[in-house]
Parts: sequence; C-alpha cells; structure tokens
Amino acid sequence: MSTNMGSGAKTGSTMSSEMAEQPQVLARLAARFDSIAGQVRAAAAPDGPVKGVAFLARGSSDNSALLGRYAIEQRTGLPTSLVAPSIVTVYRQAPELYRGWLLVALSQSGRTPEIVDIAARYAACGATVAAVTNDPDSALARAARLHVSLDAGPELAVPATKTVTSQMLAILAIAAGLTDESETAGFQADVDRIPAASATILADPEPVERVAKSLAEHRRLAVVGRGACYPAALETALKLQETLGVMAHGFSSADFRHGPIAVCGPDAPAVLLAGSGPADDDTRALRSDLSARDARVIEFGTGPAADAEWPALGSMAECILATIRGQQLASALAARLGIDPDEPTGLNKVTLTH
Amino acid sequence: MSTNMGSGAKTGSTMSSEMAEQPQVLARLAARFDSIAGQVRAAAAPDGPVKGVAFLARGSSDNSALLGRYAIEQRTGLPTSLVAPSIVTVYRQAPELYRGWLLVALSQSGRTPEIVDIAARYAACGATVAAVTNDPDSALARAARLHVSLDAGPELAVPATKTVTSQMLAILAIAAGLTDESETAGFQADVDRIPAASATILADPEPVERVAKSLAEHRRLAVVGRGACYPAALETALKLQETLGVMAHGFSSADFRHGPIAVCGPDAPAVLLAGSGPADDDTRALRSDLSARDARVIEFGTGPAADAEWPALGSMAECILATIRGQQLASALAARLGIDPDEPTGLNKVTLTH
Repeated sequence: MSTNMGSGAKTGSTMSSEMAEQPQVLARLAARFDSIAGQVRAAAAPDGPVKGVAFLARGSSDNSALLGRYAIEQRTGLPTSLVAPSIVTVYRQAPELYRGWLLVALSQSGRTPEIVDIAARYAACGATVAAVTNDPDSALARAARLHVSLDAGPELAVPATKTVTSQMLAILAIAAGLTDESETAGFQADVDRIPAASATILADPEPVERVAKSLAEHRRLAVVGRGACYPAALETALKLQETLGVMAHGFSSADFRHGPIAVCGPDAPAVLLAGSGPADDDTRALRSDLSARDARVIEFGTGPAADAEWPALGSMAECILATIRGQQLASALAARLGIDPDEPTGLNKVTLTH
Repeated sequence: MSTNMGSGAKTGSTMSSEMAEQPQVLARLAARFDSIAGQVRAAAAPDGPVKGVAFLARGSSDNSALLGRYAIEQRTGLPTSLVAPSIVTVYRQAPELYRGWLLVALSQSGRTPEIVDIAARYAACGATVAAVTNDPDSALARAARLHVSLDAGPELAVPATKTVTSQMLAILAIAAGLTDESETAGFQADVDRIPAASATILADPEPVERVAKSLAEHRRLAVVGRGACYPAALETALKLQETLGVMAHGFSSADFRHGPIAVCGPDAPAVLLAGSGPADDDTRALRSDLSARDARVIEFGTGPAADAEWPALGSMAECILATIRGQQLASALAARLGIDPDEPTGLNKVTLTH
C-alpha cells in the first residue's frame, strides 16, 4: 500500500508512509471530482433549493468541516453551520428545523457512535445527509443518502493525515456540486493541480526539518492563519498536540492580533501559514508584531520570506497544501524528539464519544 | 461607578473593580429581561418566522456568541451559525441568502469597523440585525433594527469582564424572545438568580487565590468544559492569554479526551469547568484520565471535588458563573505574577480589524 511517492518518510513511521501516499490518494479523488459534484447536485435538494449546509464532525474532521463552511459559503452564499453535537445528544433538541438542509457528516472511520446517531436524527427530520468516510461499509456511510468514499486505503497511524487532506478535497467537490454547473470547471482546474502540488511538498521535507530543529525545545506554539489557511492552522495545532503533547494553539490572524498574541515571546514561537489568497497578507503582516515581542516566527506558504514553500494555487485548495506542511512539522518534531508518532500515549483511533 | 460589591478587588486593579460591579450590572439587565425578550419577539420576524440566527463577533464577544448559539438552538431548535467575518470582508460574498435570519452582532464598543460593516451588509440583504453593545450611540447600535444596551458603565481595563457576562445575559434574553411567550417565565426565574449568584462568587475569591498559587509557575494550561461551560472555557483561556501571556487553550471535553489531552502532564495542568447541567459529568470524568497523566487538575463548579464553587442553577446561565470564576483566576494570577492586568503589553481596547 505504501509507495512513498514524494518523501518525508525518513523516520520509517507509519505516519510518514501514510503522509507519502497523499499525492496518489488525492489524484484518485481528483479523478472523481466531477462525478462527486454531480451526485451532490442530483441528491442535495430533493424538494427545492438547499436552504443551508451544516457540518457534523469531531477532531481533525472538524477542521475539514471548517474548510467546508468557508468554501461553500464563499462560493454559494448558502448559510453554513458547524453542528454542536451536544445540542442533539446531551440537550436532546431534535433538529426539526433543518428540513431542506444538507448535512455533511465527516468521520474517517464512519463508526463514531455520536456522529452516526446525530446524522440519523437529521435524516429523520428531513435533512439530506451526505457522509464522507473512508469505509463504504461503515454505519455512517449506510445511514446517508449520499456517500463520498475517500478511498484512501487503511490508515493505521493514530494521527490522521491522508484521510484529512482527502476529506478536504472531498469537501471541495461537495462545494462544487452546490454551485451552478458552469462554475464547476473553475474548481476542476484548481483541483487537478493539487496532487502534483502535494507531491512537490512531500519531496521537499528539508526546510521543515530545519525549522523543526529550531522549534524542538519549545513546548508552547501558536499556529496562525486566516481564510483558507485557518482550518489548516487548527489542524496543524491539533497534530502537534496529539502527536507531541506540545501546547499548540491555532488562531485566526484577525483574532490573534487583538489579544492572544500576548502568548508569544522568546519561549513561545509562532508558525504562520500564509498562501496566495486574499486573506493571507493579513497573516504575513503579523511578522513585525511578533518580532517586536522577540518571538521566533516560522512561515510556511507562498510569500518571499517563507521558511518552507507550497505552490501558489490562489484558492481555498491551498488549505490542503498548508495542512501537509503542518503534518511534516509534526512528523519532523517527533523524529527529533524521539517520539513514536504512530502511537501517542493514551489516544484511540476511533472516537467513542456518545 | 465602582462599588466593589462582592470582593476580589485586592489588587486594586481596574479589572478587579470592574469585575466587582458585575452583580449590579447583571441585576440591572435582569430587570430588563422581559422587556428585551419582548422587543426581540416583536422585531425578529417582520415577514414570518425567523429562519435562523447568525452571530457576528470577535474576541471575547465571540465566546458570548457561542453561548448564544447553544442557548438558542437548545431552546428553539432554530439553525444557528457563527459568522466567519472574512467570507464577507475578504472573500466578498454578499449574505443574500440570510434574508429572514436574525443577525445578532456583539461588540462591547460597538465601534469595531469590521463588525459594523458586516452588520450593515446583512441588513441590506434582508436580515434583521440586533446589536448588543455597551454604547447606545455607537455606529453598530445605530445600524441595527434592535439595540440591546448592556448599560454596564465604562469599561476601562483592557480585559473585558463585566461587558462579557452582561453580553451573555443579554443573549439569554434574546433566546427567551425567540421562544413561545409561555416559556419566558422559565428563563426569568433562572435569570433572577444570576445577580445574587455572581455576588456569592465574587465574595469568595480565596479558593481561586489558593489555586492561583499552585498554577503560577505554569505557562501552559488547558481549560475544559462542555455545553454551557464550553464558551466559559474558551473565555477563561482567552483571559489567561491576553492578561498573562500564558498559553492557555480552551477545549470541549468531548474533543479533548480523544487527542488534545496529550498536552497535559506534570508541567501542564488542566482547569475543568463543570456545573450542574447535563453535559458536565462528561467534564468531571476527565479527572481520572488527567491524573493518570500526572497532570494537576483544578475544578471549578458544583461538583463535590470542586476547588472553587458556584451556585447550581442547572441551566445555560451557569456559563456566566463559570466565566466569573475564570476572571478571578486571571486576576489572581496577575496579582501573584506582578502583572498589571489593566494594560497588558501590545493590546488595544477597540479591535480595529477591517
């Protein structure tokens, strides 16, 4: 299964092998992009236009969901929402007023009981449920009207990598399916570049390994992005938390500047994720504020000062590339710190929240 | 203005004085609870039932907004959403499909340009805008169909305290206005207890000061809650970040357990916020997992093992009480660390995000 296309597998960990599969996994999914968009277009609105799109997810899937809310609202203007699971499962409110909405339920395993339960309740109330999972035989896939299979192959390392980036691409296909058919071509051109761009990044781990050397001693980190890079900042922070036990915190650039920036200083560096979209200059502008606080600044992206680059796509799809740079950082730090990233202490692969 | 009802003003900071005003500010607002709910009921749906409720906010106001989405969705089942500001201001998507929605815009100053701009765009697209501010003459108040004045008096310390808890109470009044009139009485009984409960907490700062002693050396902290206590966990983490520069991270209990718990250990304690609602046992259950990681556990709430208590209300209103305990923690840590909480370095009172 593992072919190590690209590179970055120096530690020999399963996480590294699974990261290296991403160009192929993304290429397979990109080839189905039009077909997924078409299925969404056909299924989303059985009784008229979709009223809104709600996302249901936990953990790293929640970061893919956040990209989904940006991508769908940016392209379609539809109201979007991230479901607060406890409203249904703890406070027992039935989602009756979501009739006519599309519920996008994301779970890599498709077996998280809480997610399966909530999705069934939304379906019973008249929402159209689209499930995005890596297992077509899972309970979530079976409960949905529409199933988008990630087809990412088994993921054995605890930190999810290839299933996260493929979720993100699947989400962009769903967004395309909610736009006019004439706009899908614009998405497709963008999407066709993602597999090669991810291979370029994975073949170039050295800049991140250099950065990891300078970050290895730190136990506090801010990861900052805006727009397309904001979900990637949250996902990178989560990978650093669960893989290394580092207190990494993801922030929106706009929020960060007006308060939380106080957490950064000589002992607490910031990692800026900033690409070629309209929100990214705002993130790069933080560099001077952080330097004034004597905080070390690491920048990944497309700017002239980037410590590690990614190919400029100028679109929401850059979230996927930023996420891969973040995975490389977690993997490189694990190698440097002598941590086995595949089995961080005390974590389980399948979230069992009820 | 400052009468120091309750206590906790030992450091003599403006922040402490403003915290001490909260029972009176909350009492004034509680007295207007029915009136605000009535205004919302009259204004919310000029052309039929409200389709959904979107919240627009940044920083600590965003944490009040999060309580709003829980309270409103729990009580009414209406779809709720937190606006991603960049979708409108950076990606230039007009909120045309929010016609018939209620937009609740929260800004303590009412002068954040980004918030004023976005609220005007929602109004132009047919959303009903309700502004919650501490300045009836502010641009946001003037741009809204309905203005809920916090009437909290001037807030001069940079860390917002009395304006945050009064925002939370205002949000509960808005939630009441969206329910059937017959249900408002249930809210009112609950709300009438909040001012006295907040006074009880503010008169009892010692337990938090003891906790602060044991936390003062730590620069990494997790703050964890679920349901009504989740917004309070995020707000407490934000207060610790901006007041002390501590890398505090707020988590939902459910998410925390399945990954981020790896950040806690001997050098990184956890503060659990857990009251008497149906989501809180899930938070208290983390104690054994954290102890197994040799992480120090601090608990605020209504459980038998709580290091500092608050009066049990059994409702979403406990978010306000949890938030005050969090303020006390930030204030006590500032006093112990010799930090002036009123003027943390590099922060501004009015968020100038465009």
